[in-house]
Amino acid sequence: MNVPVAKITPRNVVVSEISSFHIGGETVELSDQPRFVMRVAGEGMSREVDLNGSYVTGQLYANCVTLAEPRHEAPVMFWHGGAMTGVTWETTPDGRPGWQWLFLQAGYNVIVTDAVERGRASWSPYPQIYDTGPVFRTKEEAWSMYRVGARASYDDRIPYAGQRFPVAGFDALASQLVPRWTTHDEMTLAAYQAALEKVGPVHLVAHSQGGWFALNMVKRVPHLVRSVVVIEPAGAPRLTPEDVARIGDIPHMFMWGDFIDDVPSWKKYRTATDQYRQVLSDAGKQTTEMDLPRMGIRGNSHVPMMDDNSAEIAAMVVDWMAEAAKAST
Amino acid sequence: MNVPVAKITPRNVVVSEISSFHIGGETVELSDQPRFVMRVAGEGMSREVDLNGSYVTGQLYANCVTLAEPRHEAPVMFWHGGAMTGVTWETTPDGRPGWQWLFLQAGYNVIVTDAVERGRASWSPYPQIYDTGPVFRTKEEAWSMYRVGARASYDDRIPYAGQRFPVAGFDALASQLVPRWTTHDEMTLAAYQAALEKVGPVHLVAHSQGGWFALNMVKRVPHLVRSVVVIEPAGAPRLTPEDVARIGDIPHMFMWGDFIDDVPSWKKYRTATDQYRQVLSDAGKQTTEMDLPRMGIRGNSHVPMMDDNSAEIAAMVVDWMAEAAKAST
Repeated sequence: MNVPVAKITPRNVVVSEISSFHIGGETVELSDQPRFVMRVAGEGMSREVDLNGSYVTGQLYANCVTLAEPRHEAPVMFWHGGAMTGVTWETTPDGRPGWQWLFLQAGYNVIVTDAVERGRASWSPYPQIYDTGPVFRTKEEAWSMYRVGARASYDDRIPYAGQRFPVAGFDALASQLVPRWTTHDEMTLAAYQAALEKVGPVHLVAHSQGGWFALNMVKRVPHLVRSVVVIEPAGAPRLTPEDVARIGDIPHMFMWGDFIDDVPSWKKYRTATDQYRQVLSDAGKQTTEMDLPRMGIRGNSHVPMMDDNSAEIAAMVVDWMAEAAKAST
Repeated sequence: MNVPVAKITPRNVVVSEISSFHIGGETVELSDQPRFVMRVAGEGMSREVDLNGSYVTGQLYANCVTLAEPRHEAPVMFWHGGAMTGVTWETTPDGRPGWQWLFLQAGYNVIVTDAVERGRASWSPYPQIYDTGPVFRTKEEAWSMYRVGARASYDDRIPYAGQRFPVAGFDALASQLVPRWTTHDEMTLAAYQAALEKVGPVHLVAHSQGGWFALNMVKRVPHLVRSVVVIEPAGAPRLTPEDVARIGDIPHMFMWGDFIDDVPSWKKYRTATDQYRQVLSDAGKQTTEMDLPRMGIRGNSHVPMMDDNSAEIAAMVVDWMAEAAKAST
């Protein structure tokens, strides 16, 4: 098969501002919380902790790089996946330019978010404000869930044959992992919606759990989404006929890496996403699937924005986005 | 008193790369942790949680903006204070350019860090990896500790007379607050040292708790610090004669805002910092103090990089840094 060779030209970028904001969430007040004494490690000392007072909870963080002369009307907005932050879109674990930088070079204003309770978005006391505690992703789970290799091969760090994830950078990837809650979908969607209302319409590029959020958001605020690229979404909503009508002609692109049949949960997520895509197709809507192995591009992991061909894949997205913008104008 | 009017010229900035890295920390392994079932809120469902496995712990996050043509040899590296992240140095809570952007406009490569267990640096399970739980900063505490106003005036949001913090942005500041641990000084210093060894020598600009870390780090790795600006440091180490000899002629600047006498803990931190400065003076070393009220600049809070004169104060730091670089060459 003839694989298109796309390329983003390396260049300096003229920036008119780097900025950021938090948005979404609400203020909650704790009262009648008992003060307690907490041990201070190492010193044999202790400290009184008083949680009573007010907190902002449910906010997200967005970082914006604005070009002096953007070459495209709408910005690109990046949403990361579970156990991750906006760092997903920055430098790859082996030190190559990340998608944030590549899309700036391609002439887009770029907005990178940290989802609610992740990274710079901050998180709230539990069980006082959040109902439950967080879950954590181990290196072992990242190894198998991100499809670097089989779980059993983790100790020896033997990746799948043909693996494109830079295995020497696996610990750098593990350094990026953050705790997450599994119970905050509505709160997170509300904050994403607030962010879209501030900066949209955007070209939305979303990874993994962020892809699930993106496909849930597209049908809520279709007027704020110029196009949507979901990279290995962790599932997709079931669309009603009303959803399909609301989504209209928003261009969709679905991207999948390799080795999916090796990991049952990814097969399941893919099936759900394929159903979403099928509903759109049945309604006569065009969508794009970039199934990389079927296109002859073997060896991509769950994190293609970090793989050794990340720049080429970014260029493929950039090319698709330009076509999508034309088609939706 | 004649207050110097410094200014950073607004301009576009030509960037050759935006990048980031995590550094420091180590891998720890949890085993023999009992699996437990956690309630999933709202659905009446539950989920098994298994913490066993490997984690990176103790790392920090650094974000780097590199200019095509920096006008200064060493980059500026920003360290934030307690309960905060690198967002401190980004857009002010009322939407004006932050110090990250202003120092880029002044021709410096800029590195912004999130300290260990804050923001994008991530944090680890407790009590399994960290000994203790975190502490949280309420809005009420931020109001008084950041010296926006007296604690009793929080409910009515009445700031100190002449307050320069943009009070309308107080909730935006509160959105930035993150949990922190009080027991991780050595772990944090180790990660900062690793970061300095990667990117130093730097001009170090550090706020509040970050200032305490900075003054502790200067004496450890003086060859990696070109100059140090501490903005309202939360105390300072006691210097031994050996420390003083190691510090050598590294230019120091100490900056203080207004209303310090209204908050006992700030009086205490200032006394400790004054002692550090006195030890250097007694050894015949020149240091700079910018006590803003004594310079005729009234009304600054604990977060002058967010106050209504933040751009002028940034320019004063830039001017001082240029002189410091000359003096130390």
